[in-house]
Amino acid sequence: MKGPIDAKRRRFLASAAVGAAAAAAAFPAPAIAQEKREWKMVTSWPKGLPGVGTGAERIAQRITDMSGGRLTVKVYAAGEIVPALECFSAVAEGKAEMGHDASYYHIGKHRQAPFFTTVPFGLTANELSAWIHFGGGQELWDELYAGFGLKPFLAGNTGTQMLGWYRKELKTADDYKGLKVRMAGLGAEVVKRLGATVVTVPAGEIFQALQNGTVDAAEWVGPYNDQALGLNQVAEYYYGPGFQEPSAGLELIVNKKLYDELPKDLQMIVAVAAQAAHDDLWAEYALRNGEALANLITKGTKVARVPNELMIAMGSASGEVLAEERDKADAIGKKIFESFLKARGPASAYTRIGEQAMANARALAYKYIE
Amino acid sequence: MKGPIDAKRRRFLASAAVGAAAAAAAFPAPAIAQEKREWKMVTSWPKGLPGVGTGAERIAQRITDMSGGRLTVKVYAAGEIVPALECFSAVAEGKAEMGHDASYYHIGKHRQAPFFTTVPFGLTANELSAWIHFGGGQELWDELYAGFGLKPFLAGNTGTQMLGWYRKELKTADDYKGLKVRMAGLGAEVVKRLGATVVTVPAGEIFQALQNGTVDAAEWVGPYNDQALGLNQVAEYYYGPGFQEPSAGLELIVNKKLYDELPKDLQMIVAVAAQAAHDDLWAEYALRNGEALANLITKGTKVARVPNELMIAMGSASGEVLAEERDKADAIGKKIFESFLKARGPASAYTRIGEQAMANARALAYKYIE
Repeated sequence: MKGPIDAKRRRFLASAAVGAAAAAAAFPAPAIAQEKREWKMVTSWPKGLPGVGTGAERIAQRITDMSGGRLTVKVYAAGEIVPALECFSAVAEGKAEMGHDASYYHIGKHRQAPFFTTVPFGLTANELSAWIHFGGGQELWDELYAGFGLKPFLAGNTGTQMLGWYRKELKTADDYKGLKVRMAGLGAEVVKRLGATVVTVPAGEIFQALQNGTVDAAEWVGPYNDQALGLNQVAEYYYGPGFQEPSAGLELIVNKKLYDELPKDLQMIVAVAAQAAHDDLWAEYALRNGEALANLITKGTKVARVPNELMIAMGSASGEVLAEERDKADAIGKKIFESFLKARGPASAYTRIGEQAMANARALAYKYIE
Repeated sequence: MKGPIDAKRRRFLASAAVGAAAAAAAFPAPAIAQEKREWKMVTSWPKGLPGVGTGAERIAQRITDMSGGRLTVKVYAAGEIVPALECFSAVAEGKAEMGHDASYYHIGKHRQAPFFTTVPFGLTANELSAWIHFGGGQELWDELYAGFGLKPFLAGNTGTQMLGWYRKELKTADDYKGLKVRMAGLGAEVVKRLGATVVTVPAGEIFQALQNGTVDAAEWVGPYNDQALGLNQVAEYYYGPGFQEPSAGLELIVNKKLYDELPKDLQMIVAVAAQAAHDDLWAEYALRNGEALANLITKGTKVARVPNELMIAMGSASGEVLAEERDKADAIGKKIFESFLKARGPASAYTRIGEQAMANARALAYKYIE
C-alpha cells in the first residue's frame, strides 16, 4: 500500500500549494526507490507444475500482497534463468534474490543437506516442522547455509510420497535383485543394497524410460503429480508408502546479505509466508493426491501397500546407509544427525499413540455416515 | 514501518523550512491516526497456557511485526475482558476486534459450528486444512459466520488428542456402562450411547473431580497440556487416540466489518499469519506432546491404545450421532456435512496408503540408527 499512499500524498502536497522545490526536496527520488524491491524467485519446478510450482507462485503473491508491493516477487520456472538444480548457486551468487526448491538437491554441497527435505524412515511433514521450529533444526540449517551465503526457510511439503511405479508385483526384498530403478537421494543407496541398479532419469523422461524398458520401476512424487506425467499408462503397479520420503520438505532460500538488509517487517513477511506455505502446499497435496488416487484406480492402476517383510528390509538397509553417512559426517553433519534423532524419538512416539493410531482406528470396520 | 517513516518525513519537511501551516495541512491528524490500529485479541485460553495460549501470542506478535506496527495486536487471556467461552459474541459485538478460540465452543450458535474444529472419526489436522483451503470448507465457514458478523480463519491445531485419563482399565465397550466421564462436544453424545454419564467439569477443576471421584475419567487435550494440570497424579491409565478429536482446529475470528475495512495488505497479513499458525501450533504440540508422554511414562502412567473392539463401537456410535445431527440440520448445515464428507473420502484414502502406512512401517522391527 506504500506506493498509492505516497502518490496520494504527493498530489496532496502539490494541491496544498507547497513550492515545487520544497516538494522535490521532501521526497528525494533515491529514498523512494529504496523502498520498492523487485525480487526474482528461481525454482526447480517446470512452469505451472501443480503443487510445488503453483505453491511457489502463491508464496510470491503473498509476499507481494502482504508488503503492499514494497517487495514484489516474480517466479521463474526451471530453465528460465537457471536450470532446475542450480537455484542454490544462483541465489548464493545473487543472480536471483530467492529460490524455491528442496535441500536434498544440494547433497553435493553438503552430505547432510537432505535432512531438511527428508530422510529414509525419518519424519512425517508435521514432525519435520516440529524439528525445524521447536527442536533446533532451524538453527543448524541456518548455520549450514550461512556458509554458502543463504538463509533457508521450510516452505512447503508434499506429504508422504509413494514408493513408485512398478511393472511387476513386489513381494519380498529379493524382487529388487537386478531391478533397474529410477530413485533419487539416499533412497537410491538403500535400493542398491537390496540389489537394484539405480538409473538416473530426469522427471520429463520417466514416462519414456518406463515405456522402453530403460527402467523397470520409477518414483517421482505421488498421485497428483505422477498422474500428470501419465505414468499409469506405462506401469501397472503403484506402491506406497515411499520409505525414501516419509515427507518431503521444500525450502525457500534467500540471499543472506539481502535478507539481512531487509527491514524487520519484510523479514517477518518472508518468514511467515514460508511457514504458511508448509501448511498450504501439503494441504493441497492431501486432497489432490486422494482425488488422483481414486481416478488412477478407476483407470486400472493396481494400488498396493509395500509388504511388511520388504519394508523391514528397507528399514534395516536405511539404517545401514545412515550409519555409514554419520561415520563420514563432519562436525556440523554430526550435529544434524544428533538433533534430528533427538526430535524423531518423541515426535514419532506421540504420532504412534495419536495420529497414526487414529488413522488406523478410522480404517476399522464400523458404520459411519456416507 | 509506516510510523517511523512518517515521523522522519515530518522532521524533514520542518527542516526544509516549509511553513508550519502547510505542513499541518499536508498531514491531517485523522489521516495518520487511521493508519495505526490497536486491536485486542480475546482468547479462550488461561494466561500463558503453553500451546494454544502462547500460540495465540505468536499470531499477535507476527501480525504486529509484519505490519510494521500499523496493526498492533494485544492478547487477552480468558476472563481478562470476557469469559473463556464468550469470544464469539465479544468479537461480533466489537468488544474486541479479534479472538482466538475453537469453533466447537459455538455449537449453541449453530449445530454444525464444531465441524471447523473436529468431528468424531473425522479429519486429521492436515486433512482439515485440505478441506478448509482446497475443498470448499472456507467458503461454507465464511457463509456461516458472516451471519454473525464474523470472518473466520483456521489458525492452529493441537493434532490428534488423547481419549483421556481413566482410573480403571478399558477393555470393551461395556466398560463405559455407568462410567462418569468428563468429555465435551459430540464425543460426549457418543460415550452416552455406550452407557456413560457425562459430567460437565471446567478445565481448572478436572484434577479435583478425578481425585474426589466426581468423575471416573476425563479428557482434556494431550500430554503437553494434561501434564501441566497434573492429571497423571489422579488417574493411572492414559488412553489414546481420542476418537472425539482426530485433530482440533483452532480459529482466529475477526469482526467482519473491521476486517473488510482493512487495507488489502493488512487483510493478507492477518490471513497468512493465521495459516502459518496452523503449522506452528501443531508442530509445537507434536514435539512437546512426545516429550511429555515420555516423562509421564517415566513417572508411572500406563499409556495404552484403545482396544479395537471398543474403537469399532465408538465409530458406529459416532456414525449414529452424526446421522441424527444431519437429519436435524438446516440448509447450510447439510451443505457442511456434504462438503466435509466429500473431502474426508479422498483425503483419508491417501493418508491410508501414504502417511498412515509410513508411520506403521516406521514402527516395524527393523534396525535403525539411534
